[in-house]
This record gives sequence, structure tokens and C-alpha cells, in this order.
Amino acid sequence: MSYSTQMNAAQKGTVTPQMKQVLAQEKISESELLQKVAVGRIVIPANRNHENLSAKGVGAGLTTKINVNLGVSEDCCNIDMELEKVRKAIALKADAIMDLSTFGGTRDFRRRVVEISPVMIGTVPVYDAVASYGKDVSRITVDDFFNTVLMHAEDGVDFMTIHAGLNRVAVERIRQSPRLTHVVSRGGSILLDWMESNNRENPFYEYFDRLIEICRDFDVTISLGDALRPGCLNDATDAPQIQELIVLGELTKRAWESQVQVIIEGPGHVPLNEVVSNMQIQKKLCHGAPFYVLGPIVTDVAPGYDHITSAIGGAIAAANGADFLCYVTPAEHLRLPDLQDMKDGIIAARIAAHAADIAKAIPGAMDWDNAMSTARKDLDWQKMIELAMDPEKAKAYRESSKPIDQDVCTMCGDLCAVKRSRRILEGR
Amino acid sequence: MSYSTQMNAAQKGTVTPQMKQVLAQEKISESELLQKVAVGRIVIPANRNHENLSAKGVGAGLTTKINVNLGVSEDCCNIDMELEKVRKAIALKADAIMDLSTFGGTRDFRRRVVEISPVMIGTVPVYDAVASYGKDVSRITVDDFFNTVLMHAEDGVDFMTIHAGLNRVAVERIRQSPRLTHVVSRGGSILLDWMESNNRENPFYEYFDRLIEICRDFDVTISLGDALRPGCLNDATDAPQIQELIVLGELTKRAWESQVQVIIEGPGHVPLNEVVSNMQIQKKLCHGAPFYVLGPIVTDVAPGYDHITSAIGGAIAAANGADFLCYVTPAEHLRLPDLQDMKDGIIAARIAAHAADIAKAIPGAMDWDNAMSTARKDLDWQKMIELAMDPEKAKAYRESSKPIDQDVCTMCGDLCAVKRSRRILEGR
Repeated sequence: MSYSTQMNAAQKGTVTPQMKQVLAQEKISESELLQKVAVGRIVIPANRNHENLSAKGVGAGLTTKINVNLGVSEDCCNIDMELEKVRKAIALKADAIMDLSTFGGTRDFRRRVVEISPVMIGTVPVYDAVASYGKDVSRITVDDFFNTVLMHAEDGVDFMTIHAGLNRVAVERIRQSPRLTHVVSRGGSILLDWMESNNRENPFYEYFDRLIEICRDFDVTISLGDALRPGCLNDATDAPQIQELIVLGELTKRAWESQVQVIIEGPGHVPLNEVVSNMQIQKKLCHGAPFYVLGPIVTDVAPGYDHITSAIGGAIAAANGADFLCYVTPAEHLRLPDLQDMKDGIIAARIAAHAADIAKAIPGAMDWDNAMSTARKDLDWQKMIELAMDPEKAKAYRESSKPIDQDVCTMCGDLCAVKRSRRILEGR
Repeated sequence: MSYSTQMNAAQKGTVTPQMKQVLAQEKISESELLQKVAVGRIVIPANRNHENLSAKGVGAGLTTKINVNLGVSEDCCNIDMELEKVRKAIALKADAIMDLSTFGGTRDFRRRVVEISPVMIGTVPVYDAVASYGKDVSRITVDDFFNTVLMHAEDGVDFMTIHAGLNRVAVERIRQSPRLTHVVSRGGSILLDWMESNNRENPFYEYFDRLIEICRDFDVTISLGDALRPGCLNDATDAPQIQELIVLGELTKRAWESQVQVIIEGPGHVPLNEVVSNMQIQKKLCHGAPFYVLGPIVTDVAPGYDHITSAIGGAIAAANGADFLCYVTPAEHLRLPDLQDMKDGIIAARIAAHAADIAKAIPGAMDWDNAMSTARKDLDWQKMIELAMDPEKAKAYRESSKPIDQDVCTMCGDLCAVKRSRRILEGR
């Protein structure tokens, strides 16, 4: 190939097959896509080894994408159930899947996930380094870490979370901070453990060029992890979080110098009134790189309903600059999600993403809503169910409670305002 | 009594028993409460005949309140289930219940609801006028309408939705508008039907003073209904909606001249990026009167999940001026809600209200979140469950999936970041 990464291709003016897939899905011109991929405002995570990938773009001017987390862990080591989740997540229109496996034959599982997924696949290699080497965290070597990254790249992973911004300056900030919850990032806490045990710098920070090289070779998009994201509302937008974000902005530029694509990861737990400023400061400090947020959830008090707390935060975030939403399920803070939790999480994230796409005026985003509204005025129940984000649930609700007058629903019955006003104003 | 309404008492500097109840719940000073009730920025809906009411305030500087709709209808005429809903709604901490019954012995049911409810009760008398008189809408008389209002007032209803802003000018606007859905307010469509059939002005607009008189006598708070609220995103913030809002602002001033308390009702379906302007324009046009919104839902395409679409809109609305959220359940647009739907709707609305209370800096609002965050860092599962908005659901999740290490949960298992970072940073 005459280019290393999608970013490199864009800089040369080359329209890749992956760009053509993006152009077929999004209302963006070829020249705008090329320009934005070239400067890093749009990424197209597409590992050279992910053969059946149907590539998607993430970034400015595109529809908001959503990610689903799953994976095998010691407490929940049912591989078949996790593969079933992969299939179901794809059917429910997830744009990306992160395999967060931490137990068992992680490589076999990961390869299987890549093989069956047309959606982009992400991983967090440090989890796997802990799982695969079976060593105490402090004894994992720098080579172990990078060999894990290389292995994931070879396996076709499209984007990897790397907590490279957690350097010793950031650790000092977290030590001094009056946080209620310290470090709630798993990858971050593992690296913190390693750094403190060995009294060394974060290897992904110290040897960032080694990471860049692997990622360029396979066109892996680096998803710069936020090890110091807030774990509660009280800790949001504090010095450790912003300190790390400054470093992520610096690393972004270094990756771009080698044409490696970058996503920035963000919070987490954020009060509703701080969500917009979090989006602005990320876009500024990270030079317009796409922003991938986990939530943010806007209250800490609703375990069992964090798909809702995160849909609120995610919608506001995506309307104000976030490009990629990591789903949160009702099981968050309580247990690993089951299939139903996953479904609830996906739908909530899709609602947030779609509401934001309308708000940020993505061309055509409201066409779907207008089609639904027309079906509503027409009292066309079949059409309403077909158009519903979850036709299965809409149908089940409708069928569980049949009205006397089949035109309407039992909500208002014969007092249906739609039917009455249509009769009066349109004579039908 | 030496005062007619709470507003009248506040203007005289009289602290009523109901104000004392409000002061006991909210972090607001007596003088601020008096001042805000006096000018209508806070209402305390408290019908003189609602004997066991524990009064709450709705408005500026107070926590956001939530309302639950229920009632008996022809399609779902199970009185016992609706009374069970009343009890459950109270247990789930709803602040208000609207009885929207449209079938059967509505008066008996209404009196029973008032009798068993310490929370404020609202109704929409035009529904009941249609239900109780058993006449074709066009043949209901002006006296019928007002006699229904009087009957509800006598029965102890604390606030009533009255669509008095739908005058003939507003109807002209709706006739001329290119809306996708015309009139989606039940009460609005009934009055529209009546006005068009009889070629007359809306009786609640024409004889607004008659309404004021009844409401003053019983201290019923008028909840000025938005007959022309948008029924889809496409129709939001359009001329008919704003035309009606202008009239509601004028009627607000007339009610205040007689010391009658007023709430303004609002949308509905609104794109996320128009929610804030909707709050601002209401506060401006209606002179700071409390704002009561139904949702707003921020996409039309998710029937079955409108508790989520409305939690997004409701949180943003309440953070920007809305004082009172009407819950929306997953059954919205599909059927009457059952008990589970009601619970889901209440929790979603409470999440939105609480997230907004934090955002608008209601004193002490974040204490609850901080207590939860502390329990999280302490890995104190019993405390986390106690503090959860829905302890029952949190407990069920926790117990369904026990980790090998009882300190943590199966989400991260032995990779628990909280446990690891606490060990490293605190040595425990």
C-alpha cells in the first residue's frame, strides 16, 4: 500500500476503501472527509488485519457513535454468553465493541470477536497483560506491556485504550488532591500500581514512540485513556483530571506527527452543569481530536439506572463536542451486565447519540423523527412500530393493551387528541 | 382565616402552616420564601379542603418536584390498581399526583385519592366534564365546565390544569401552521372541538374571572395548560406554541391580581438544542411563574423508552428554569402505564430532577452523591445499597452476581480500581 494509516492517506489525498465506506453512510463530502481525517478531527479506526470490518468514522460532522463493552472475566467466565453479546450488540446497531476480557484464553476470544465483527473492535492491552502473564502487576516488564500491544495489533484490533497520560507529574497531582474517590480507571490503577511499586515512569509515557510505531504499522487508532477521570461528581473537572488532559493533548500531537490516529477518552462522573465545559476544554487542549466519553453520569446516587444517568450526560456531551459514547448499563457499579443489561445500555446510548445528532444539526438526523411523527398523525401503528428504535419492545407494549378503538391507544382512548384534532383541522 | 391564598398570606407577611412545612424540607429562609410566594415565583399548591396534605413548594430556589399521572379510563378501568398506583407513587417519593380519570365514578375515585394522599393532587377538569356529563363535547355548557371546576375544588384538588390560553387567535395560528402533528393535548383538543363546533371563544379564556374566583375561594393553584405544545420535534418552539405562551403570561398577571397562584405548563417534544431557550422564553413571557414541563422528550423515535428521552430533556429543562417535571413512562405513546412502568417513570424523573438540582446549585443537593461516593471508596456495599435511589433494584443486582472477593463487584473483580488505588494511595 502507498500509505501507512488513514490519516496518512488523507494527507496524500488518497481516498481509501474505508473512506468510501464512511462516505456511503454519512452525509459528508469526500473533500471534507479527507480534510478532517488529514488533520485528525475524524478518525477511521481500521486495523489492516481486521478483514471483514465495515469501517466507520468518528469525529466532527459525523453521527455520534456508540461503543459496547464486554469480555470474559474470572467472575463471569461464560465465553458463549459473551459471544452471544457480540452478536446481539451488532444486531442492536452498536458501532464498536470493546473486548475487556481479563480471564482465560483472552487471545482466542479476541481473535474470534474480531473475526465475527464488522464493527470496529477496541481493547485495553494492560488488562490483558495482567491476565495473560499471570504475574504480579509490579513484575510485568516494559516488554510485556508492549508485546501485548503488538499481539492485539496483530489480532486486528482497531483501537486500543492506552493510559499514556498518567505520568509522574499527574500521579503527584492525584496524591495531593482531596478527591473522594482516587483512581477509578482499571487500566490507570494498574499502571499507578506498577509505577509506584517500581518507582518508575509510566512505560507508555516514557516509550510513547514504541507505541506509535506499532500503531502506525497496523493502523491502530490510539484511544488515549483517562486514568484520572473523576469517579464521582465531587471529583469532576479537578486538577488531576485536567493535568492528565494537558498531557494527552501533547501526546496527540506526537502521534499525529507519525500519522497515527488518536481518540481522547473522557469522563466519567460529571455534574450536568460542567458537561459543556468538559467538552470545550478537551477539544481545546487536544487540538480537536475526537472525544470518547464514558457517560458522563450526572448523579452518583442511582445504581441500577446508570444507563439513564449516562444518557443524560452523554446526550449533552455529544451535543457539545463528544463524538463517541461508551455505553453504560443498568448494572454499572453493581455487577457485570447480562444480555438484557447490554440491550438497555445500547438503546439508552443510541437515544443519547441520536438526540445529540439532532441538536448538532447532523444533516438528515431529524428525518427519522419526522417519519415517526407523520406515522403518529396518521395513527399508523404498524409504521410507528417499524420506525421505533426498538420495534420489539414497542410492539410488545402495544399488543399488551389493546384499546376498544383500534385507531388509538389506551393512553387516551377515545379522548385521543391526535384523532380529534385531525378531524377538526383536516376533516379526516 | 385572615388570608385567601398562600400568595395573599405571603403578601401580608403571614407565615402559614403550609409555608412552615415547606421551610422544614427546603434550605430556604423564611423571608426568601415569603418574598417569592408573594410575587408568584414560588407556589404552594394547598387546597383548603385537602386536609392531610403535607405541603410542598414549587419554584425558584427549591428542589425540582415531580408529578405522576394516573387515573381510571374506559380501556383500563381497574380502580384498585389505580389506588395501588397512588400508594406506590407516594412510597416512591412522587411530589404530586394528577388524577386524569376519564371513566366511571370519577368523583368517588378523586375524593379517595385526595383522602389518602399527603402529596398534592392535580386534575384536568375538562376530561372529567366529558366523562361525567356523558354529552357530546359540543353540547357541554359553559356552566358544565365551571361546575366541574367547582366540584374539583370542593373535593380538595390542589392544582388544576386549565387550557385557558387556547383562544381564537391561537386557533387561527394552529390552522395556518405547517405542523406535522396538530394538537396533542387532550384537554386542548377537547376545547378546540368545543370552540369550533360552537363557533365560540374558549370559555376558560372568555370567563377567566369565573375561574379565578373559584380558585381563590379554595386556594387552588391554576396550572395554565399548554394546549398547543408541540407533539413532535419538528413542531417545537413554533408560532402556535409561543402565541399561546404569550396569552398564558397575560392570564398569569390577571390571576396574580387576585392573589391566585399560577404554574405554567410546557412541552412536550423539543430538540435538545432548543430546551434552554424554551425555559428562558417561558420565564420571560410568564414573569417568572413556576414552569411545569411534560418531558420534554428529545427524540420521537424511541417509544418504549420515553422515560429516558424525557429524563434527558427534563434534566436540561430543570437545570435551566423548569421547577416541576411531569413524569413520562416507558409506556408513553403506546398504552396506559402499569405499576412497573410507573415505577420506571418515577425513578427516571427523580434522576432528572436531582441531576438538575445539583446543576442549579440547590443547597445541599450534592450531599447525597458525596455520601454515595464515600461509601464507594469504602467498598461499603450495605451503605451503597441504602443510599441508592432504588435500594431494592440495587440490592437485587448486587445479590444476583456475587464476586469471588466480596469487597468488590463482578464488574472489575480483582482488578477493582477503587481497591487498588486505595491501597496504593492510602495504604489500606
